[in-house]
Amino acid sequence: MKLIQSITLKIVPVVLLISLFSCKEEVTVVSKEEGKTVSEQGAHPNLILTAQGVKDIRAQLGSIPIFDASLKAVQEEVDAEIALGIDTPIPHDYSGGYTHVRHKSNMLMLQKAGVLYQILDDEKYAKYVKDMLIQYEAMYKTLPLHPKTRSYARGKLFWQCLNDANWLVYVSQAYDCVYNYLSEEERNKLEANLFKPFADHISVDSPQFYQRVHNHSTWGNAAVGMIGLVMNDEELIDRALYGIKDLKLDTEEKDDDGGFLNKDGKAGFLANIEEPFSPDGYYNEGPYYQRYAMYPFLIFAEGLHNVKPELKIFEYKEGVLLKSINALLNLSDADGDFFPLNDGQKGMSYYNDALVTATDISYYFGKQDPGLLSIAEKQNKVLLDDSGLAVALGIKKGLAKPFEKKSINLSDGPEGTQGGVGILRNEDIELVFKYAAQGSSHGHYDKLSYSLYENGEEVIQDYGLARFVNIEQKGGGNYLKENKTWAKQTIAHNTVTQNETSHFEGKYEIGSQHHSVLHYFSSDNDNVQVASAKEVNAYPGTEMLRTMAIIKDADFDKPYVLDIMKVVSNKANQYDFPYYFLGQVLNTNFEYKVPETLRALGSKNGYQHLYLEGTAKSEKENTKFSWLNKGKFYSLTTVSNANDDILFTRIGANDPEFNLRREAALMLRRKNTENTLFVSAIEAHGSYSPVSESAVNSNSAITALKIVLDTEDFTAIAITNVNGTTKLFITANTDADKEVRHNLKINGKEYEWSGPYCFK
Amino acid sequence: MKLIQSITLKIVPVVLLISLFSCKEEVTVVSKEEGKTVSEQGAHPNLILTAQGVKDIRAQLGSIPIFDASLKAVQEEVDAEIALGIDTPIPHDYSGGYTHVRHKSNMLMLQKAGVLYQILDDEKYAKYVKDMLIQYEAMYKTLPLHPKTRSYARGKLFWQCLNDANWLVYVSQAYDCVYNYLSEEERNKLEANLFKPFADHISVDSPQFYQRVHNHSTWGNAAVGMIGLVMNDEELIDRALYGIKDLKLDTEEKDDDGGFLNKDGKAGFLANIEEPFSPDGYYNEGPYYQRYAMYPFLIFAEGLHNVKPELKIFEYKEGVLLKSINALLNLSDADGDFFPLNDGQKGMSYYNDALVTATDISYYFGKQDPGLLSIAEKQNKVLLDDSGLAVALGIKKGLAKPFEKKSINLSDGPEGTQGGVGILRNEDIELVFKYAAQGSSHGHYDKLSYSLYENGEEVIQDYGLARFVNIEQKGGGNYLKENKTWAKQTIAHNTVTQNETSHFEGKYEIGSQHHSVLHYFSSDNDNVQVASAKEVNAYPGTEMLRTMAIIKDADFDKPYVLDIMKVVSNKANQYDFPYYFLGQVLNTNFEYKVPETLRALGSKNGYQHLYLEGTAKSEKENTKFSWLNKGKFYSLTTVSNANDDILFTRIGANDPEFNLRREAALMLRRKNTENTLFVSAIEAHGSYSPVSESAVNSNSAITALKIVLDTEDFTAIAITNVNGTTKLFITANTDADKEVRHNLKINGKEYEWSGPYCFK
Repeated sequence: MKLIQSITLKIVPVVLLISLFSCKEEVTVVSKEEGKTVSEQGAHPNLILTAQGVKDIRAQLGSIPIFDASLKAVQEEVDAEIALGIDTPIPHDYSGGYTHVRHKSNMLMLQKAGVLYQILDDEKYAKYVKDMLIQYEAMYKTLPLHPKTRSYARGKLFWQCLNDANWLVYVSQAYDCVYNYLSEEERNKLEANLFKPFADHISVDSPQFYQRVHNHSTWGNAAVGMIGLVMNDEELIDRALYGIKDLKLDTEEKDDDGGFLNKDGKAGFLANIEEPFSPDGYYNEGPYYQRYAMYPFLIFAEGLHNVKPELKIFEYKEGVLLKSINALLNLSDADGDFFPLNDGQKGMSYYNDALVTATDISYYFGKQDPGLLSIAEKQNKVLLDDSGLAVALGIKKGLAKPFEKKSINLSDGPEGTQGGVGILRNEDIELVFKYAAQGSSHGHYDKLSYSLYENGEEVIQDYGLARFVNIEQKGGGNYLKENKTWAKQTIAHNTVTQNETSHFEGKYEIGSQHHSVLHYFSSDNDNVQVASAKEVNAYPGTEMLRTMAIIKDADFDKPYVLDIMKVVSNKANQYDFPYYFLGQVLNTNFEYKVPETLRALGSKNGYQHLYLEGTAKSEKENTKFSWLNKGKFYSLTTVSNANDDILFTRIGANDPEFNLRREAALMLRRKNTENTLFVSAIEAHGSYSPVSESAVNSNSAITALKIVLDTEDFTAIAITNVNGTTKLFITANTDADKEVRHNLKINGKEYEWSGPYCFK
Repeated sequence: MKLIQSITLKIVPVVLLISLFSCKEEVTVVSKEEGKTVSEQGAHPNLILTAQGVKDIRAQLGSIPIFDASLKAVQEEVDAEIALGIDTPIPHDYSGGYTHVRHKSNMLMLQKAGVLYQILDDEKYAKYVKDMLIQYEAMYKTLPLHPKTRSYARGKLFWQCLNDANWLVYVSQAYDCVYNYLSEEERNKLEANLFKPFADHISVDSPQFYQRVHNHSTWGNAAVGMIGLVMNDEELIDRALYGIKDLKLDTEEKDDDGGFLNKDGKAGFLANIEEPFSPDGYYNEGPYYQRYAMYPFLIFAEGLHNVKPELKIFEYKEGVLLKSINALLNLSDADGDFFPLNDGQKGMSYYNDALVTATDISYYFGKQDPGLLSIAEKQNKVLLDDSGLAVALGIKKGLAKPFEKKSINLSDGPEGTQGGVGILRNEDIELVFKYAAQGSSHGHYDKLSYSLYENGEEVIQDYGLARFVNIEQKGGGNYLKENKTWAKQTIAHNTVTQNETSHFEGKYEIGSQHHSVLHYFSSDNDNVQVASAKEVNAYPGTEMLRTMAIIKDADFDKPYVLDIMKVVSNKANQYDFPYYFLGQVLNTNFEYKVPETLRALGSKNGYQHLYLEGTAKSEKENTKFSWLNKGKFYSLTTVSNANDDILFTRIGANDPEFNLRREAALMLRRKNTENTLFVSAIEAHGSYSPVSESAVNSNSAITALKIVLDTEDFTAIAITNVNGTTKLFITANTDADKEVRHNLKINGKEYEWSGPYCFK
């Protein structure tokens, strides 16, 4: 009870301050009191909905199909909830449990009901909001910490502060919508007993959650800032923008996921924009978490834009918030599913509501890109605010054009100098090449890893996370222990594992100090898209330079992938090089044995989760392997060393709760080797329909893949097609300057070209 | 060469006969020569397209959208082929290989080009047909048997007669379309050197293929009959309808699949209608093969209807051909995919071209069911003939209505007395309960087995076949050895396996003599749909009575399944009772152990293909298990004996070529038991979206499942819901009469009802 009392004392001035203005509208007085600046307190709503916006929306209602439909859906949803009655249960459960789900649903209903009140001018919605808020106020004022103890920062309504912050981000909007409907007395009560202590709990009382550069903190910052904007509380607004004043945290402490709590002392909303976003708009944790962080970033930015236009938040860091939306949309496959880099749950897509927000805000506050309208059409939903209105009108006017995704390179790091992610695209083939920094606590140890897609389907997969988000039966919906023991480990990824240990020994302290370095990225030639990057820190003494290309060649059915992994080491190692193909084995050009019993391939670093399902020795100059996945054929052709082991593996060993998916890989193992080159071509070809039962073009078109040159400066690969045509791909290993001219004699033939690679 | 010569000699009279009429049109002369009757030789085309039909189609062209679109698609396809030029390579490959694919494509192109010639009246199509036929004629007259030797009946163009028969079914139509375009001399040459010897090769020269009741033979019969109709060759037509005259085959010989070649001497098209179709239209091999056989059945029937209307083929056996289309459509899930009973390849659906034929023919020659129009709309394609025109006009007129699939019981056997298949449907839940006869050589040993679907997704799967049809890399696209060692075995199915041996010892000779017997089927009550059947021959001395119900109860989210398997035996046995669930394990109410290494569960009868992934002992009165599949939750609640072992298994052991899918099962094992009862409830509940990440209703709603009575005459199960409500399901085990009144006292309470079951 001490805590509550001290908070109550602290907020007295704020309550007084607010009461000064609470009965007025359209006040433009600027006042200072106890160090707080109160500027332009406008009419409510003014946070997300604006008074003018509401007027415009009401004028257009009934003639803006996608907006009308979105409104109708929300209305039906809220009406159904109102009919069921209000329930604000005493918090008890983890994610997925009843009280968790209920409070989560309540926050959404409050926000929606608030909006409905404004747009439809129907008091029943305002009353619903008011009644529920009053119930929350009655409960919250004596509410202890949430009984579940697993979180590094426990909330009160939820088991972790993060969810409490979610709640306040939504409920701030609801409060803004009914602000004028409430009496001054009601507002005072809510602010004193609910909103201010709520904001304090997730900030000053939980600095380990709040005072960081992390997506959790972004939610915290936005929550505090948004309620601050509605309450016109400059102290809260400042705390939101700049973090808790004069607070220094232990820079060595870690959170539940193993990330540092506050390594460099930066905090607050602006720092959270500064740090995680690169100038290209790439978010360091990857698209899954960017999607999650996007909503508070954008919704608070929208609020700031409306209430504090002088901050020019959408121009901050050269407009990185809007750029990040474009980056995020580009980090999705053909179906709109985000690439599951780092701890990403598969299936998350731009159909998520956060992306409805992002798309609409980007359209309205950005340059009215007609490509965004086509995404809004697919989402079939708009925000019920000014931005959603703009999108609805754009669609109505027929302005939508397809959102074209091309090859794109996205730098990582606050200055764009900490590696990045390159996406190569040609026709239906997409390759995601990751050479980024660690990605905070959600990062995986997978330098120079990639995943491959055809038309939105995974071909060579990235496993993603080991978690069933919000499914209570699976570890409370939280990260499962296999996320650390499997999903984060290097062997779970399509890159080189040396001596059965993960990159950076799988240690966050080391990994977070390093990043890979772009060698070159080239997408000028429509037929040859190349990304090349280098990693020298993952294994001290070993350098890895990986060059990946998608090549469209008339001799081939579809664009194919060329993959050149050059490894240089100062000692002999074992290199494991897996291909996490999805689908069913068709055939191989080598004989393999399958064991009678399945055993784990190793005992640690992820190897303990792999069953060994088959073994072979490479027999020919090229090892070939074909598989079938979702009606399409794929073939891998790789240059073999006589020394190579070929392993078939399957995920699932030492998985006592069936937390992992039983998926396969083909793995090349090269033992006792210093320098080496892994060269592979991956073809997508043909198709199979179980309806027509016809198999079209089911065989690889490559008859030979050959290393014709490999020096410090150049690597040259010859690709020979069934038609007998041979093409050469030469990549420059040292000088990747765009302008430099190269001369090279290979097998008596002169090659001359400019730039980092040559294909002819 | 001897063979060819003898055929040439044989067909001389026919050539003479045809030359009598070939220069005339609309001839109505009836003539007899050498025992053949030639009746009503009409104008060509008269087989599938008719002269009047062509006239009607031409008159409507451009105003019948789905027909116009189908025509355009065919035209584009054929034009592209014409541009590529004609290739009739010397046969060499198995399914999936070039020459196979080429000749298969040629047969389709010929048929399509013929139709285009008629509809568009453009000579280039007729010329294309003529040129290709002449090439075939030149090749065929000296063509030896196909070089591949695997088939029990080798073809000439293809490795098996079956494919040769396919070819002739299509090419007969092409020939009919260009009949009048060809000169008499050309026709004579084609008939003498190509069509007649071709028809002879697949019939008189391959009686082991032709002279059977089997889908292969149906193709053979139709091929011979259709070319006979075009050539107006009564001998061929007779051979098609009634089989090869005076031929008796060894009744003990078997084909490649282990089926008897000709056990009872029946043969010919009419016998092939008589035998495999039950009066309800169920085809004894199951829907996958029905679909395959459907095309020759219907297209030959259409030809017979047009050329020999006096046969009244569509009224044959009380109109079973049209009934069978309705049965087949009902044997598909919500997406139109056929249930993979017996050797069925998953993914085959009513989008297959054979079903376009079936749908259009059923509409046109049947009762113009508007439900068929909605399927045609989904197929987005119609036949380019009179029936397709009728469908296109129906759709154009807006007559289409949804094709409603309800619970349906389909009897098996020529007289409908050899068991059957019951499909229970309620809302999105579909349960397919199989109590049929063996299903010829494509049958599985799975008496009283079932599979469960929700909205077109498999929940508890039937494995289907072990084959990659037409994918050459996988055993030439043919049946894999795992089809016998795994897919056909009882343990691969959701039914009881006794003492680790399959039903009927897995022997076709025994299995084909028996069938299960319907106890009752009840679908009158919308909320309770029940199928119950008995099997007494699978394991001599053991009787199995299985009663499966789908129950819609207001206390439950969705309809749930109740499964009562009553086993009575004259000795103690081990019973294995698997659930082939698809998806990922969520949780259990029992502790289980997972082994360090995976070993096969057994050494034969399919057990050699199962890895043991986890073991437990039942701890409570109910064993509970939940899983997640494609965004939906499922829970199994089963009544446990203290004695029960619970096993987690996974398919894939002893699978040296990765031919099997690595899918899981939960298996109950009850050892050393005579009589017993397996009682389970399977609930579908709630949903999970990876986009919203919200888990709705993720827990089972059943708190207790209890056997409250089990006597020879009755079994009563109490189902208690989380709300505390208890319902009783009582099934009559002996007297299932609809009218009979039952009285029963259970725990002091009187139950009185009429009919086979009671639910209250």
